[in-house]
Amino acid sequence: MNLKKQTFETNVPSNTEIEVAIIGAGVSGLYSAYRLTNDESTPLPANQVQIFEMGDRIGGRLESVELPGMSITGELGGMRYMTSQEIVTSLIENVFKDELNNIPFPMGNASQHFGYFRKQRLKMNAWEEAQNQGSVLETNYIINKNDEGYSADQLFNKIIYDVLMADPWFVSNYGNLVANPSKYEYTFKITRSQWNSIKPQLIYYFIGPYNGLKVNDIGFWNLIKDRVSQEGYTFLADAGGYFSNTINWNAAEAFPYMVGDFSNAGSEYKTIDGGYDLIAYAIAKGYLNNQGANIWMGNRLVTFKKQTSGTYKYELEFFNKETQSSWTLKANKIILAMPRRSLELLDQNNFFFNQDSQKVLQKNMASVIKEPSLKILMGFENPWWRTDFNTMAGHSITDLPLRQCYYFGKDPNDSHSLFLGSYNDMQTVTFWQALANSKREGGIFRKLFQPKATDKVAATAFSKRLLSNQATQVMVSEAMNQIKELHGRKEIPMPYVTWYKDWSMDPYGGGYHAWKANYDIANTMKYMRNPIAEESIYICGEAYSDQQGWVEGAFCVAERMLQSYFELKRPTWISNNYYLGW
Amino acid sequence: MNLKKQTFETNVPSNTEIEVAIIGAGVSGLYSAYRLTNDESTPLPANQVQIFEMGDRIGGRLESVELPGMSITGELGGMRYMTSQEIVTSLIENVFKDELNNIPFPMGNASQHFGYFRKQRLKMNAWEEAQNQGSVLETNYIINKNDEGYSADQLFNKIIYDVLMADPWFVSNYGNLVANPSKYEYTFKITRSQWNSIKPQLIYYFIGPYNGLKVNDIGFWNLIKDRVSQEGYTFLADAGGYFSNTINWNAAEAFPYMVGDFSNAGSEYKTIDGGYDLIAYAIAKGYLNNQGANIWMGNRLVTFKKQTSGTYKYELEFFNKETQSSWTLKANKIILAMPRRSLELLDQNNFFFNQDSQKVLQKNMASVIKEPSLKILMGFENPWWRTDFNTMAGHSITDLPLRQCYYFGKDPNDSHSLFLGSYNDMQTVTFWQALANSKREGGIFRKLFQPKATDKVAATAFSKRLLSNQATQVMVSEAMNQIKELHGRKEIPMPYVTWYKDWSMDPYGGGYHAWKANYDIANTMKYMRNPIAEESIYICGEAYSDQQGWVEGAFCVAERMLQSYFELKRPTWISNNYYLGW
Repeated sequence: MNLKKQTFETNVPSNTEIEVAIIGAGVSGLYSAYRLTNDESTPLPANQVQIFEMGDRIGGRLESVELPGMSITGELGGMRYMTSQEIVTSLIENVFKDELNNIPFPMGNASQHFGYFRKQRLKMNAWEEAQNQGSVLETNYIINKNDEGYSADQLFNKIIYDVLMADPWFVSNYGNLVANPSKYEYTFKITRSQWNSIKPQLIYYFIGPYNGLKVNDIGFWNLIKDRVSQEGYTFLADAGGYFSNTINWNAAEAFPYMVGDFSNAGSEYKTIDGGYDLIAYAIAKGYLNNQGANIWMGNRLVTFKKQTSGTYKYELEFFNKETQSSWTLKANKIILAMPRRSLELLDQNNFFFNQDSQKVLQKNMASVIKEPSLKILMGFENPWWRTDFNTMAGHSITDLPLRQCYYFGKDPNDSHSLFLGSYNDMQTVTFWQALANSKREGGIFRKLFQPKATDKVAATAFSKRLLSNQATQVMVSEAMNQIKELHGRKEIPMPYVTWYKDWSMDPYGGGYHAWKANYDIANTMKYMRNPIAEESIYICGEAYSDQQGWVEGAFCVAERMLQSYFELKRPTWISNNYYLGW
Repeated sequence: MNLKKQTFETNVPSNTEIEVAIIGAGVSGLYSAYRLTNDESTPLPANQVQIFEMGDRIGGRLESVELPGMSITGELGGMRYMTSQEIVTSLIENVFKDELNNIPFPMGNASQHFGYFRKQRLKMNAWEEAQNQGSVLETNYIINKNDEGYSADQLFNKIIYDVLMADPWFVSNYGNLVANPSKYEYTFKITRSQWNSIKPQLIYYFIGPYNGLKVNDIGFWNLIKDRVSQEGYTFLADAGGYFSNTINWNAAEAFPYMVGDFSNAGSEYKTIDGGYDLIAYAIAKGYLNNQGANIWMGNRLVTFKKQTSGTYKYELEFFNKETQSSWTLKANKIILAMPRRSLELLDQNNFFFNQDSQKVLQKNMASVIKEPSLKILMGFENPWWRTDFNTMAGHSITDLPLRQCYYFGKDPNDSHSLFLGSYNDMQTVTFWQALANSKREGGIFRKLFQPKATDKVAATAFSKRLLSNQATQVMVSEAMNQIKELHGRKEIPMPYVTWYKDWSMDPYGGGYHAWKANYDIANTMKYMRNPIAEESIYICGEAYSDQQGWVEGAFCVAERMLQSYFELKRPTWISNNYYLGW
């Protein structure tokens, strides 16, 4: 079956009294509905668990698209998982294995990847090459003597290792889990559960402004600058590829994030054949298979209030897009399966958000940083990166505003090939936004890129949806300029089709989230799952998780919430010793 | 008289039916009240024009403070005006000349100012020194050949000059107003009124992605990168001192802003003896001198609705801080004298903000960028910058997160001296926020800096307000580290007192604003002053002005609004030919 062929409701339910209203059909909302109605011991009747989504598609910040002429799927949002993430892995490879085929997410070979920083063009293995020859790679960054010659990944590792090993408490309790076998090599064998013991305790012990403070209480920028100078920081921000990794977020949270995901060459990445968002569609199907289950698209929650009489605790006010009218629903429990910005777009003056003059909930909502991110996907008639550079997979990185491009590969059946022309975040998002069609936001109309027919693709293959999601002409021209500069080529053929996605737009507010420094994160996470103990209102999703930026973060928070407040038992397909986080 | 000795109401008015409700006691709200009640022909009775302010002080983003031991005033917000700005100049030097003494705002001498960029320490006249010797200053920026040797100010001028002169329409209409008499020298003699004719018309004529587009329709980052490469852009962003100048805001708007304010060495800056916020207090007094005039402090507007019966058009709901209770007011006209974030904090679901499904007002509100900015003021027992470097006034600049410091001078009566330890904006604000006392925002308490008694200041001189506005200890340590690095000194004595102000916090949302690219700014400005023609609701202030970041912008918008919708005539103290802008 084609999971994407499922259709959902777009009207208003006739039954407006239910037990559980789930707001948001991203992965945490879908997971909650699926678990509540498929629990192995006491499932709820699906007609009592309904999902409401303001948009016109499910999946939230997972969105996979096909460009005409290619069977390779493009990822506008989340694109991969790690096999150490047990819930997502088990769902894909076990629970929904009949629907989903997992495939490797190849990261290619650094020797085939370009780096272009401060006008220096190199291959991304240049640091290792120099190290192998016993020399130090010269760059245009004025790096401190002690830090010269390290690649960005290695320097992140060095900083984290040095901070960990400077704390005697860490050394005596966990010192055996980390190692520095040779100058540039670092290993970390700390589990997530161990990290959650380490993060709130770890002390920063280096002479200077932060000496004696908890690492949790300073920002990652503060810490990196203190260890390797502002120039070292800029090198890491540029060469690491993601500005979001080095913004001034919680330094303690950054440690496992950097070590686990971005610094460890051994991590195994996977994705789903046909698109990573199929995980959302598979879970949706698992929920919708139950009689009475429904996902109500185009229904935006506006506000909700307490019921003073009757059998239901809450009355929710929705706005239906199709009929352009408001309607109300009664429910006993509300699950807000939403990121920070979506929560902020709800009525902030209702009893829940405005519960006290201290605005405790709003302050806790603000404990995470919304991280803008933006992608420009491109289809080319031929994989010039293979032909010209023998690059098969993975990404190149630059300090130009395009920041990263990904080589997604050539269609097995023809020559057409998929390329992520830009994957950029934080301040660079504004570089591209100014070139977008700002008419949608009240500005002036701008010409969109005009997809071109090829010898394999007829002009009729370009759907209305595809045409309306093109990058603008000027954006494609500017991106191609930068792609040429990054690769050191005077000419690269133009793409025949594009797809533009800016996750900073409402209702998302960003592609992912990061904890701020100087917050008690364990308690904030717990608080957010049920902000007012007397109320049956719950929040879940990636934003307030301890695996931010990952689908697994959303699942873990949802699972914790379901076990705590809906009395669900751990399902058999999550092993007993798997750690669900704070 | 001491203007700051004025006291304001903090309770709730007994007369709750008035003609004009002004929300916000920043300079545009105060100016509106003053003008309405002091008009030379048809003043309104002051009891019909009342000001409501949610905070506990007037002046908005003007806030001048005195540190004990010094008569020199510290500026946390706006700190100066230009004599070409006629409304503010006339108010200070004419209308309120009995209350206000204008004094020069000295910018010192570049030969006494430090620059520190990518670990290169130099004096800020180093570029000119090299030019005088016929050589080119070497920096750590990989600048294009054509752009080498230019200081940041000169390179901004070069870019703007080149873009202007590449447009034949500009050359034939205004070409005689600009000149490039020698390689590094540029002059611009374009008036504000001429700029407003040029900005919407000017075309960008350079081969590349932006060829043929209006300069108004691209961002300043886009344009700078296209002219001088990303490295050239980074040089300008770093060495220019303000990241806000080079964010990707409207390139056409950036032109007069950069040329008029930051690039033209001849601009005359002035301020007010005793603090620039005295302009707010003088206007307040001018309004309060009228019988029945009142500024109601601690009264936050929550929402407003249309009246369906009775003689008044609107009912406004306020929340009074002192009594912690809501109350309502009836009025026929509402002036929202507020920046973008303050508008966003009002009920966005009322008839005004939620007038249509297209959310036209909210889209127009989003046409400006909120620019975070943050200051750390410091008092030193001795002016080490005079002793050590003979620096008398002005500022030093660095790419370290402190960005700029200002040498404010030595008290004439003793040795104690005022220093702006950091004046930073945009992304660097997050560097310091992570070191702030985040308890106010739901985070963990952090120790504040402990002011120290000196031989001139007793410990009892530190007021409760001063103590609660100290920077944190860790922030002061980190700032002092950077101040030492910028000045190339191993040791600099610690300050004895500080003052911390972060303008990105609610209700301000930023220190100043900037128009986005690809908006029709002339029409947006006009729209914002009266978003719904049938409604008597008006918006004024710096945010939606064509002199953003300046008090004069707020005054011009307010004056335009008052003339258009309150039928006021231009007062005699504004000359007939003075241009009020779009």
